[in-house]
Amino acid sequence: MIVPGFRSAGLHCGIKKGGEPDLALIVSDAPCAAAGVFTTSTVVGAPVELSRERVRSGRVRAVVVNSGISNVAMGARGRRDARSMTRLAAQGLGCPEEDVLVSSTGVIGEPLPMDKLRAGIPDAVRALRADGLPDAARAIMTTDTHPKLATRRVRVGDATVHVAGIAKGVGMVEPNMATMLAFVLTDAAAAPAFVRRTLRDAVGPTLNRITVDGETSTSDTALLLANGRAGNRSLRGPSSAGAAAFARAVGQVFEDLAKMLARDGEGATKLVTVCVSGARDAADAERAARRIANSLLVKTAVFGRDANWGRILQTVGAGDVRLNLERTRVRLGGVTVFRNGASAGPAARRRAEARLAADEVEIEVHLGAGRASDRVWTCDLTYDYVRINAEYTT
Amino acid sequence: MIVPGFRSAGLHCGIKKGGEPDLALIVSDAPCAAAGVFTTSTVVGAPVELSRERVRSGRVRAVVVNSGISNVAMGARGRRDARSMTRLAAQGLGCPEEDVLVSSTGVIGEPLPMDKLRAGIPDAVRALRADGLPDAARAIMTTDTHPKLATRRVRVGDATVHVAGIAKGVGMVEPNMATMLAFVLTDAAAAPAFVRRTLRDAVGPTLNRITVDGETSTSDTALLLANGRAGNRSLRGPSSAGAAAFARAVGQVFEDLAKMLARDGEGATKLVTVCVSGARDAADAERAARRIANSLLVKTAVFGRDANWGRILQTVGAGDVRLNLERTRVRLGGVTVFRNGASAGPAARRRAEARLAADEVEIEVHLGAGRASDRVWTCDLTYDYVRINAEYTT
Repeated sequence: MIVPGFRSAGLHCGIKKGGEPDLALIVSDAPCAAAGVFTTSTVVGAPVELSRERVRSGRVRAVVVNSGISNVAMGARGRRDARSMTRLAAQGLGCPEEDVLVSSTGVIGEPLPMDKLRAGIPDAVRALRADGLPDAARAIMTTDTHPKLATRRVRVGDATVHVAGIAKGVGMVEPNMATMLAFVLTDAAAAPAFVRRTLRDAVGPTLNRITVDGETSTSDTALLLANGRAGNRSLRGPSSAGAAAFARAVGQVFEDLAKMLARDGEGATKLVTVCVSGARDAADAERAARRIANSLLVKTAVFGRDANWGRILQTVGAGDVRLNLERTRVRLGGVTVFRNGASAGPAARRRAEARLAADEVEIEVHLGAGRASDRVWTCDLTYDYVRINAEYTT
Repeated sequence: MIVPGFRSAGLHCGIKKGGEPDLALIVSDAPCAAAGVFTTSTVVGAPVELSRERVRSGRVRAVVVNSGISNVAMGARGRRDARSMTRLAAQGLGCPEEDVLVSSTGVIGEPLPMDKLRAGIPDAVRALRADGLPDAARAIMTTDTHPKLATRRVRVGDATVHVAGIAKGVGMVEPNMATMLAFVLTDAAAAPAFVRRTLRDAVGPTLNRITVDGETSTSDTALLLANGRAGNRSLRGPSSAGAAAFARAVGQVFEDLAKMLARDGEGATKLVTVCVSGARDAADAERAARRIANSLLVKTAVFGRDANWGRILQTVGAGDVRLNLERTRVRLGGVTVFRNGASAGPAARRRAEARLAADEVEIEVHLGAGRASDRVWTCDLTYDYVRINAEYTT
């Protein structure tokens, strides 16, 4: 799918050793209404500092992204390099430098090879194409095993609006801002304030509800860019005609991307959906869901196809979460393995273990303590997570 | 070392499939002053419920422990079985049932084979020996690769006091109560209130400062038993003669055990000591140290001998910890790899990587934000952690 008015490119400029694409450029023909959400870490990369500041204007023309090196903790030099990347893009595009955002992802603590970017960014400008978004998706990957792209089409008033997003994971994925990087483009016409609100609402139950290893990156960035080319009457707030449909489409794109990120967590073999219900309140529901999703013992059990409700109860119990054991229920892959304070027996356990062989697994826990619920996506923990992270320098 | 007045035993009674020892008994010839600290989980095993209640009297004769099955989440049956274990021991020893404590560790959610324990516990009574503590240490193991035993001898007034402790890990080891199981015996004469205080003070900087995988077990139990056989004037408080020396010896035994537990974390190849200094306050220091010690990315980097200060800063930064990057310093194996907001360069990194080959590694982080410090022990995260936990039913 093509989002009218946007062009993108992805190519190899020389940062990655193996010749893989490492430079992406996304450009709108005209200035966009834009919003961003960023890592909550107190240690952030120079690109995050710069983009966070610039996106406040609500107006963006382009985003330039490199993978391979994250430009984090490089002091004054890092800030200079981030700015240079946007200047090189702005020069090629003939727009103000302030309208260009930047992201970098990859190894922390190495300097960007600016000579390569000085040649590469003009090359990327020349390579821009209306159907170039898949190339950009590939160029932002680090240890991702495949590019992530999600799209939706939706009627907004009389107009057809396109929404397309790309994202990359893969470790260091946990709130708040669970991304890593996600860029969602739409040709809807919308006021910057509504773009901000739509982005915030979309990210909460999606990117902020995934976890791979409980880590938050220094570079997490999610952007929503709306260039207005669809010609709908501009969306100014939730009561504008078509606003709900538009917000839903954006939410679906973020949900698709979030699940792709969780499923492609480093070394993962499965997408695991953790659903907690019966919690005392929303905070307890979220805490219980995150604890289960981050528990190494649960994640290794899922990898080993072990219907181990004991580890699930243990990690919830340790987490300052109200739970009424006599009314607690645990279902794995739809099979009840624990209820009313006791095991549902070995036959149920065997049935659940058969379900754990699937590449999508649901863990449902009812805490018996109230009516609140929450949902978090994660993946299993495997030998390959260790291999990737023991052998790769982040 | 033998602690006068104590006898112990460890044997195989039939819980573990492979014939390994799975039943331990520790007995004092006369009632002891005793204290215990237990898991803070809201999901606890029946043995924890029972022992926590009984140790309040401050008076204990014996502890009976099985490994292989944890007797957690078994409802009324579990409570009955825990009580039966203490009754069987009390009958063999000719003491009140209320003077016997019980611990169980192993798989959650399977019933104890009481027929085997009905034969095994009298066997254990017959096997009691003054030098039987190493056998008990072996019999409480689950995935531990070796038994853990630590001893100290100390002068208290005119008397020589012996302190000996055993412990087992290995996953699910994190505060508060980081044990799993630890039993420390001494022949010191001490009032129960001082035994409680000594235990609490000893556990804070030792067992409560280790972590393997951030999980808290449902069965964590640490006991300190003092039988008075040394004949010292009874220790009633910190100002009693010899109290400081005694408390130090107990603290050293717990520290030895804590380090053994961290080093023998599931799949571990290294003992990792995380020292945080320059923190705004004690809470920040502890939070930063625990975040580093629990970071999968840091733990896999240590396994991979990667002097990755980026991952250390990233995990601290994400943790709501005050840090002044321009004044932050990171040392790995004694080599400064980051200082004044920037990398110390590739040569320093290579030197640090050589140090990471050792089987004891120190991570030191100065946050540049104050004067508080803390220390946590952990281990690296390896393929074997995944293997053990994907293939073993806890």
